[in-house]
Amino acid sequence: MSTLLWQKPGVAVDTQIQAFLAGDDVILDREFFLHDIAASAAHAEGLQRVGILSGDELDGLKRELATLADDFRSGAFVLDERFEDGHSAIEARLTERLGDAGRRIHTGRSRNDQVLVATRLWLKEKLARLAALSREIATVALDRAEAEAHLPIPGYTHIQRAVLSSGGMWWSGWAEAFIDDAVRARDTLALIDCNPLGTAAGYGVNLALDRDHTTAALGFARLQVSPVYAQLSRGKFELAALEALGSATLDLRRLAWDLSQFTSAEYGFVALPAQYTTGSSIMPNKRNPDVVELMRATHASVAAARTEIEQLLSLPSGYHRDLQSSKGAIFHGFGRGLAALELLPALLANLEWREDRLRAAVDSGMYATDVAVEAAIAGVPFREAYQAAAASADTAGQGRTPEGSLAARTSPGGAADLRLDTLRARLTALD
Amino acid sequence: MSTLLWQKPGVAVDTQIQAFLAGDDVILDREFFLHDIAASAAHAEGLQRVGILSGDELDGLKRELATLADDFRSGAFVLDERFEDGHSAIEARLTERLGDAGRRIHTGRSRNDQVLVATRLWLKEKLARLAALSREIATVALDRAEAEAHLPIPGYTHIQRAVLSSGGMWWSGWAEAFIDDAVRARDTLALIDCNPLGTAAGYGVNLALDRDHTTAALGFARLQVSPVYAQLSRGKFELAALEALGSATLDLRRLAWDLSQFTSAEYGFVALPAQYTTGSSIMPNKRNPDVVELMRATHASVAAARTEIEQLLSLPSGYHRDLQSSKGAIFHGFGRGLAALELLPALLANLEWREDRLRAAVDSGMYATDVAVEAAIAGVPFREAYQAAAASADTAGQGRTPEGSLAARTSPGGAADLRLDTLRARLTALD
Amino acid sequence: MSTLLWQKPGVAVDTQIQAFLAGDDVILDREFFLHDIAASAAHAEGLQRVGILSGDELDGLKRELATLADDFRSGAFVLDERFEDGHSAIEARLTERLGDAGRRIHTGRSRNDQVLVATRLWLKEKLARLAALSREIATVALDRAEAEAHLPIPGYTHIQRAVLSSGGMWWSGWAEAFIDDAVRARDTLALIDCNPLGTAAGYGVNLALDRDHTTAALGFARLQVSPVYAQLSRGKFELAALEALGSATLDLRRLAWDLSQFTSAEYGFVALPAQYTTGSSIMPNKRNPDVVELMRATHASVAAARTEIEQLLSLPSGYHRDLQSSKGAIFHGFGRGLAALELLPALLANLEWREDRLRAAVDSGMYATDVAVEAAIAGVPFREAYQAAAASADTAGQGRTPEGSLAARTSPGGAADLRLDTLRARLTALD
Amino acid sequence: MSTLLWQKPGVAVDTQIQAFLAGDDVILDREFFLHDIAASAAHAEGLQRVGILSGDELDGLKRELATLADDFRSGAFVLDERFEDGHSAIEARLTERLGDAGRRIHTGRSRNDQVLVATRLWLKEKLARLAALSREIATVALDRAEAEAHLPIPGYTHIQRAVLSSGGMWWSGWAEAFIDDAVRARDTLALIDCNPLGTAAGYGVNLALDRDHTTAALGFARLQVSPVYAQLSRGKFELAALEALGSATLDLRRLAWDLSQFTSAEYGFVALPAQYTTGSSIMPNKRNPDVVELMRATHASVAAARTEIEQLLSLPSGYHRDLQSSKGAIFHGFGRGLAALELLPALLANLEWREDRLRAAVDSGMYATDVAVEAAIAGVPFREAYQAAAASADTAGQGRTPEGSLAARTSPGGAADLRLDTLRARLTALD
Repeated sequence: MSTLLWQKPGVAVDTQIQAFLAGDDVILDREFFLHDIAASAAHAEGLQRVGILSGDELDGLKRELATLADDFRSGAFVLDERFEDGHSAIEARLTERLGDAGRRIHTGRSRNDQVLVATRLWLKEKLARLAALSREIATVALDRAEAEAHLPIPGYTHIQRAVLSSGGMWWSGWAEAFIDDAVRARDTLALIDCNPLGTAAGYGVNLALDRDHTTAALGFARLQVSPVYAQLSRGKFELAALEALGSATLDLRRLAWDLSQFTSAEYGFVALPAQYTTGSSIMPNKRNPDVVELMRATHASVAAARTEIEQLLSLPSGYHRDLQSSKGAIFHGFGRGLAALELLPALLANLEWREDRLRAAVDSGMYATDVAVEAAIAGVPFREAYQAAAASADTAGQGRTPEGSLAARTSPGGAADLRLDTLRARLTALD
Repeated sequence: MSTLLWQKPGVAVDTQIQAFLAGDDVILDREFFLHDIAASAAHAEGLQRVGILSGDELDGLKRELATLADDFRSGAFVLDERFEDGHSAIEARLTERLGDAGRRIHTGRSRNDQVLVATRLWLKEKLARLAALSREIATVALDRAEAEAHLPIPGYTHIQRAVLSSGGMWWSGWAEAFIDDAVRARDTLALIDCNPLGTAAGYGVNLALDRDHTTAALGFARLQVSPVYAQLSRGKFELAALEALGSATLDLRRLAWDLSQFTSAEYGFVALPAQYTTGSSIMPNKRNPDVVELMRATHASVAAARTEIEQLLSLPSGYHRDLQSSKGAIFHGFGRGLAALELLPALLANLEWREDRLRAAVDSGMYATDVAVEAAIAGVPFREAYQAAAASADTAGQGRTPEGSLAARTSPGGAADLRLDTLRARLTALD
Repeated sequence: MSTLLWQKPGVAVDTQIQAFLAGDDVILDREFFLHDIAASAAHAEGLQRVGILSGDELDGLKRELATLADDFRSGAFVLDERFEDGHSAIEARLTERLGDAGRRIHTGRSRNDQVLVATRLWLKEKLARLAALSREIATVALDRAEAEAHLPIPGYTHIQRAVLSSGGMWWSGWAEAFIDDAVRARDTLALIDCNPLGTAAGYGVNLALDRDHTTAALGFARLQVSPVYAQLSRGKFELAALEALGSATLDLRRLAWDLSQFTSAEYGFVALPAQYTTGSSIMPNKRNPDVVELMRATHASVAAARTEIEQLLSLPSGYHRDLQSSKGAIFHGFGRGLAALELLPALLANLEWREDRLRAAVDSGMYATDVAVEAAIAGVPFREAYQAAAASADTAGQGRTPEGSLAARTSPGGAADLRLDTLRARLTALD
Repeated sequence: MSTLLWQKPGVAVDTQIQAFLAGDDVILDREFFLHDIAASAAHAEGLQRVGILSGDELDGLKRELATLADDFRSGAFVLDERFEDGHSAIEARLTERLGDAGRRIHTGRSRNDQVLVATRLWLKEKLARLAALSREIATVALDRAEAEAHLPIPGYTHIQRAVLSSGGMWWSGWAEAFIDDAVRARDTLALIDCNPLGTAAGYGVNLALDRDHTTAALGFARLQVSPVYAQLSRGKFELAALEALGSATLDLRRLAWDLSQFTSAEYGFVALPAQYTTGSSIMPNKRNPDVVELMRATHASVAAARTEIEQLLSLPSGYHRDLQSSKGAIFHGFGRGLAALELLPALLANLEWREDRLRAAVDSGMYATDVAVEAAIAGVPFREAYQAAAASADTAGQGRTPEGSLAARTSPGGAADLRLDTLRARLTALD
């Protein structure tokens, strides 16, 4: 069991209770240990600037923090149950190596703002990755929309054949979806890009900390001004980040549904490279699109992470230990969410259409809307044209071709006027 | 029972099934009927520009749409179960009054893009209101932070007395929170500010609709390019809007918790004007802060709306009838959410602190952190100073005053350096 | 605006605040107004038994309560915004008609236990209906399992063709599912079947109320003993009821998914009677299975109701106004949930299989498991037999028939040993 | 990377994709590895009974399975990434040690029913523990209700002082709550207590498996008859179990809220033994009730687990890889939920009331309801008595004592008639 920073002499420690309090907290802290170290170095610089640390002490602390980061990366230092949490581990190591300089590192700082700043840096990194992946996915989709602009694909509503669609329309739909997801990741990153370090336990501290320095040193866009709000943003910012992620994984869920349908025997529209499929333990004939299914399942994990944090946040202002559970939630949500999105660009780039199956699935009823609109163009009131086409839906479309139908789809965004340039311009503006 | 646009001759209609299909859809459609009418006028203009309608027909349609809007506002026209939905009601009315011009209004349009554009306009309106309310709340909070900068308020962590806080710190915390909520409402409004009209059933249409005209006429910032994405954004944009709302109602939940505690007999920090309280049916002595409690409960309704929509969205691309349930969800979420936020500025402006109770709740242990930090400033390593202060926590703070403690809280954002100007600048930038 | 029971002289009432407090509460109260009246009659009987009311007063109250119930049913009495809530409306009416006897009805009662008892009676009624519907659905499914025991249906895993299944297996699967749902509805009904009336505001009352009498008079199985627990069960029992409902609507979601797939052009396994489908406003060719889609969407509403209540319940013990929101939630969840389940027995009884399409979808690879297991029976170690069958998966099954495959499926529950008697026995035991 | 059971020659395996597919599945499988081994032994017995295995082969398999269980418990065998999952690990080990007998173990079994049976046994164990803990908590509460029947405790509604309560009433409230939770755990255990082994991939198998034997051997109460339903119960039963758990953790959330309030400086009603509290890293004066706060946070983890599974279950019937995510969810939910409940009996047994603070918090207004009811007993119509008491709420209760108020609370369940025997009888019936 770890030594506790705050332990008072004479108070017995109950092992089962300590295990409950600790949970897997110190293990989770591995995730942002390097961020905690980086923020500790910035805090030390700030302390030297206001006279709490000497120049030599600062040098020593920065050197030992760098060594600790190296040791952690190499495995020479293992963050485990010997420590109450990552924060205590840092202070313990610095004290062990440097004595009083280590005992000074926590001046003007609470674990409350320490965990905030480390989590904030971690969330910024994840949101940046989310934005990059969303852009990457949109790029693949735009490229294929251009290349396959004229490929006929049956269009569905209600999982029923509706009207003809095209490669251009299907791909550009996903492109615009992931452009929006990239925008949202960027906006969310901007929202949370503020420095909570220096707010201590949520009420500031009787010391003129150089918060502007740590803000700049850690690359934050601005100061998070209020110590009370710094605490209120615990969980709130995690939720915002998960919601941005959820926007992408919800699109992924619908995309995976398309692919799950398209790779079935009944549709047969898409062939996935063999590495995306698995077999069965009992049925020798099976090749299952498990990758696609796990992609579809991903949003459930992001949603679970949201639930876990949202349910915690029915509390007065100020820090409460309840908030500890928010850590595991963001690791779970972002771990699953980004892992699925990482695989998506290559999967999309490599999927192959089976054109014969696509064409075979276009039945003549799918031209009935074209017929009715043509009559409307020719002067028949649309509702009347609709009824005429409905009365002869099975035969009205006979003799028509996919190529003809797509060439006439001239409303902006339609198959004959995809406006990919507009989408590409929005995408480029995000770089 | 309504006449159905799409009804085929000879198909019997089952009353119970039709009731299930309809649900309360047409009642819900009242909420955005005026938006549907506005979008119909823009669509008619577009149809005239591409030759589907004559100038006279357009004039007739615009006049009748304006009359319908007036009749709806005045109650002369009631949208009820006589119609399948609001969309059908508009077409029926126009056809009844204008004949063929009415039968032409639906040319190149599906109820799929019609409901999208009406909902989008509604959501924009609600998000604008959310942004305005968030700014208003932040303004009240900033004003009171300035006026009550030096009011001592006990600061809590873990619902336990921790260190001294102040009126300046408590109010500026909520100010910064609601500034962020205003930012988020604005960003979300920008994200969804794109025109889906002209995407028909999700696959475009064989007609060169003037979508740029309808985009401008309806005040959208840009075109939603892809018809496939227009359908994918059903639910997705509703969720984004509810998440922005939820950011504010979650802050409200925590603020209401503070007020619920502060108005209890045990704290007694805050007196609410009598109109915010109610009595009991059996206990003659009660005055309960029901308004505050219903504010705290509000987020649950927003969360429920999110759940309802998120659970629907496990579907392939394209429209599905499942999505109908998203309508009731946004009305419920925004109805409750905005109603609560509307009351907040006045409640915050009118609440009164009971200074005697605030001061009485400051015990000397709350100065222990000050003591330890002062020792650290004087050169004692902080961890050592902490242990010394812990050993004498009950006595170390004796003789200190709230005023002295607050005056020393010089870290930026702290009581002695609130940086309200920084917050006011962010707020002003949002106007 | 209503007169408020608890109003004190001289306190101004703010209209906007009163509207926020009231919400749509009095409208929601219509749902259980008759239960509130019934519980009021039982309470009056109890009061007479302990001497608070005379025999004449009791007669008058019971007569007027019966009249009020009749007037409410006929529409002669409308419960609306003139009243703060249904509870106040009852007391106001009785006082208006009977004077002091009306002023005595609330003796020893709080709105806190009044709403509990009315809600409890309502939930019991809904759970009984849920149990009955689940049994009805299971009965249809069992009957069709028996009738279509030998109908070949392709069996899927991962939305990929896997091994042969049968009408017997598909139907008995849903039968067993809804039997379990009926069990769960029954268990939940038993859990909540206890009388909260007589617990007042949550701390009992200084009066020896005859709670055993009201328990019997209202048909409860037992007393809910503790007044503190009576309040703690607000929301808790609503959640339990929604979870029982959700068990059935989750099964319905998966059943609706099967039907949505089976009615697509790609599968074509099932034809739905025309009254279960609708058309499109723009596409003349469409017949969409909207009933099935709205059934699939139903669980989202039940889940939303759960969310709304669960999020409220982060509170200390005792009544809080937050709990008011639980009313709308249960009406929404049960309203949608039961409406969908009500349609299911007839839909299931009337759906028609298209045998030609079912047979056409059985490809020879679906016999590969049969081949491998036969080899295992003949002595080849299964893993070896599996690999041999995998190597020849395309050809190994050639010449086999659906009838032969199903006849060999002799593991209990399999096509050749359905054990419908076992299921029917469990179902009968529930009557 | 593991060898894959179903791998076909010549298909390249992509490391990143395999890592995504595997997730932490094999690590999670450690949780129910012993159950998987037990079910494998039962399956082997069944295979011997139908002639697939010889007596010697069965003996060998049972011996090696027992050894594997021992090795796993001792750490001599580690289940890790060398294996695709726990199921494959068992077959691999048996094959390595026994050759063909190992290759026969999977005859008539799929990983689909294998994971079902192992999970089912695990869930039964957890639900039994939940029931036992709930009974244990109820027992402590009943004992303290009896011992502290006459202790005055202020009763709250709306977090406002309302009427007097007592130790007897507070404790018996929690007792009845956890008795219901025990009932629910028991009912849920009974619901899921059925054997899915022998349903293979969800469509039975061409072999007359002795499912009745495995049902008895594994201690199941009945057969889960339908293979189709066995698959439909994946996730459904997990949800049912989490909902039973959630019933208890939601009660815990409210109990923890009471304790969080009661241990604050403002209330000061309860002293917790020091081992249940922790200190702060910066504030020397703090002792925080972290155990209570983490108990309050526990329900969020259970709710997250529910969300994760519920969101997955929008799928047609049959197995889908999406369901893999349900494993981590139940481990998370039950891990956190039971850990918190395990600590509760001792915490409740050890908490100490501070009687002086309890008495000091009883103000005379809290007797106003007593006054009004007494007047009603004396013949004044209650509503009139209420108004009189309201007019003099501050003075009416003067001179009254807690003892007098509690002694008059004679309604059943009230302080003077607690009916603990009724509760104890229900509790005993659960043993």
